[in-house]
Amino acid sequence: MRLPAYSSAVQRRYAIIGSGALGGFYGARLQRAGCEVHFLLHSDYEHVRKHGLRCDSKDGDFHLPHVHAYQHARDLPPCDVVIVALKTTHNHLLAELLPPTGAVLTLQNGLGNEEAIAAVTGPERVLGGVAFLCSHKVGPGHIRHLDYGQVTLGEFSTSVVTERLRQIGADFERAGIPVRLEPDLRMVRWRKLVWNIPFNGLSVILDASTDALLRHTATRALIVDLMREVVHGANACGARLTDADIEQMMQYSDRMTPYKPSMKLDFEAGRPLEVEAIFGEPLRRAQRAGVTLPRIETLYRQLFFLDARRRP
Amino acid sequence: MRLPAYSSAVQRRYAIIGSGALGGFYGARLQRAGCEVHFLLHSDYEHVRKHGLRCDSKDGDFHLPHVHAYQHARDLPPCDVVIVALKTTHNHLLAELLPPTGAVLTLQNGLGNEEAIAAVTGPERVLGGVAFLCSHKVGPGHIRHLDYGQVTLGEFSTSVVTERLRQIGADFERAGIPVRLEPDLRMVRWRKLVWNIPFNGLSVILDASTDALLRHTATRALIVDLMREVVHGANACGARLTDADIEQMMQYSDRMTPYKPSMKLDFEAGRPLEVEAIFGEPLRRAQRAGVTLPRIETLYRQLFFLDARRRP
Repeated sequence: MRLPAYSSAVQRRYAIIGSGALGGFYGARLQRAGCEVHFLLHSDYEHVRKHGLRCDSKDGDFHLPHVHAYQHARDLPPCDVVIVALKTTHNHLLAELLPPTGAVLTLQNGLGNEEAIAAVTGPERVLGGVAFLCSHKVGPGHIRHLDYGQVTLGEFSTSVVTERLRQIGADFERAGIPVRLEPDLRMVRWRKLVWNIPFNGLSVILDASTDALLRHTATRALIVDLMREVVHGANACGARLTDADIEQMMQYSDRMTPYKPSMKLDFEAGRPLEVEAIFGEPLRRAQRAGVTLPRIETLYRQLFFLDARRRP
Repeated sequence: MRLPAYSSAVQRRYAIIGSGALGGFYGARLQRAGCEVHFLLHSDYEHVRKHGLRCDSKDGDFHLPHVHAYQHARDLPPCDVVIVALKTTHNHLLAELLPPTGAVLTLQNGLGNEEAIAAVTGPERVLGGVAFLCSHKVGPGHIRHLDYGQVTLGEFSTSVVTERLRQIGADFERAGIPVRLEPDLRMVRWRKLVWNIPFNGLSVILDASTDALLRHTATRALIVDLMREVVHGANACGARLTDADIEQMMQYSDRMTPYKPSMKLDFEAGRPLEVEAIFGEPLRRAQRAGVTLPRIETLYRQLFFLDARRRP
């Protein structure tokens, strides 16, 4: 469902856990729209504390000279909404990073993040969402927003569009971010995997851009077969997807400007790959539901090798 | 079956079509053992005509200062045995390269080569074999033989170990090449694919050596699953292989010195990949037998992309 343009004007206080290309972008947009935002930072802390955040965006460049920057989670004030934008490869830090109060919205990739957060906070505080955003960091506290930005949000512990979900959605809309609210978060997550699994996986394994993968007959056929396996796994796990989702995702991909998926950016930057969230966890869930997804498993193992080989 | 050490002393005349790292090696070994050998050459013709063939081998280096070298197939004298050692990517040249008489023994990779030759010569003239050889060309007419060398030979049009097969086998043995003669050439070909498909494919796609692929848990599991698919495809096509073949091939691979499969050498040298012979044709045969091999198909499409991308 789409939100009405009008929305509640009550001010909510946000914390951003992981203020990189994704967390930094949404946090900066929320602050620019009038929300009070508190940024937890790691390597960029000193720079952002002094110089704020800069965003070069296709929607217009902007600079926030003053932001609330924190180096330690314990220093964050109580917030209404905690946005988790860590790489899933850092989920082992959740227990020490998550504050004791506030709704927790994970915008991380793949499956299993809501569960990892719920293990710390209890399920009721958890919301999830998928971001379709093309952005990367070009320097400390400096984000380049190349394209897209829309988010789809849902509750984790209930299949209802709650009032708090509407309020958060309204804040994002006020910040100029297109928002969809969905009652079925599980379906949203699996649906995103229909895109993420083929394009993240093949772009890394074949060192290729999305448009090259779509242009060649062989990889195009492989992309469609991988999408079919995602839909098969989704249905086995109770998330209803159909061939229409595949067709829609292919049409959508064909219209996209050539794009480097996040895993490709991670690989090029030497960062650990989100192999478990995007590949391992969906495979394990499908397997528990009695379904083998051999093409996805092949990519998983290839990525696992490529990722592990770079480690000491 | 293994040949007796003793063998017929009748001299057979050999032609070698494609005198590269494989054809040049076996041809040179046969000539050194006393056979009359005629080499069809392409780029190395002038050099070999003047300087002969040189082989640096783990079995002992040798030089043949005088060899019968030819630039055109039409100049070859009638031979008893024509050994085809072309890359399968050049099989479109077979009709103009194959002489009108003599048994034709293909030592090429993958499936479909006997059929391609039989389409030119008729099936009765055709024999096939798989070579387990690690060699490469280091210069014109100069071959480096790193390891192995054994061949397994069989008839194409009959499941009998014929007299001519024994005679050819005896010539190879006299040349110091370990030989097996097998009645079921189809089984021999599929059995070789149990090794060729995982190691050729993954070494190119993941830019990895055989020992690295075997050492990492994820790729090791993928190798075994790919081998299982080959065995499944083989059985569907009437070539009886079992899990014991997989175990044997894994034990064998673990004992091997690290090795660059031929497809990896081709890829590094910028040569076209033998994707159709090693992947495409087995997949099509399995498909005709009603069997899908999704992991092999995934590798096929990845290789197809990597191969096609390099072409203008």
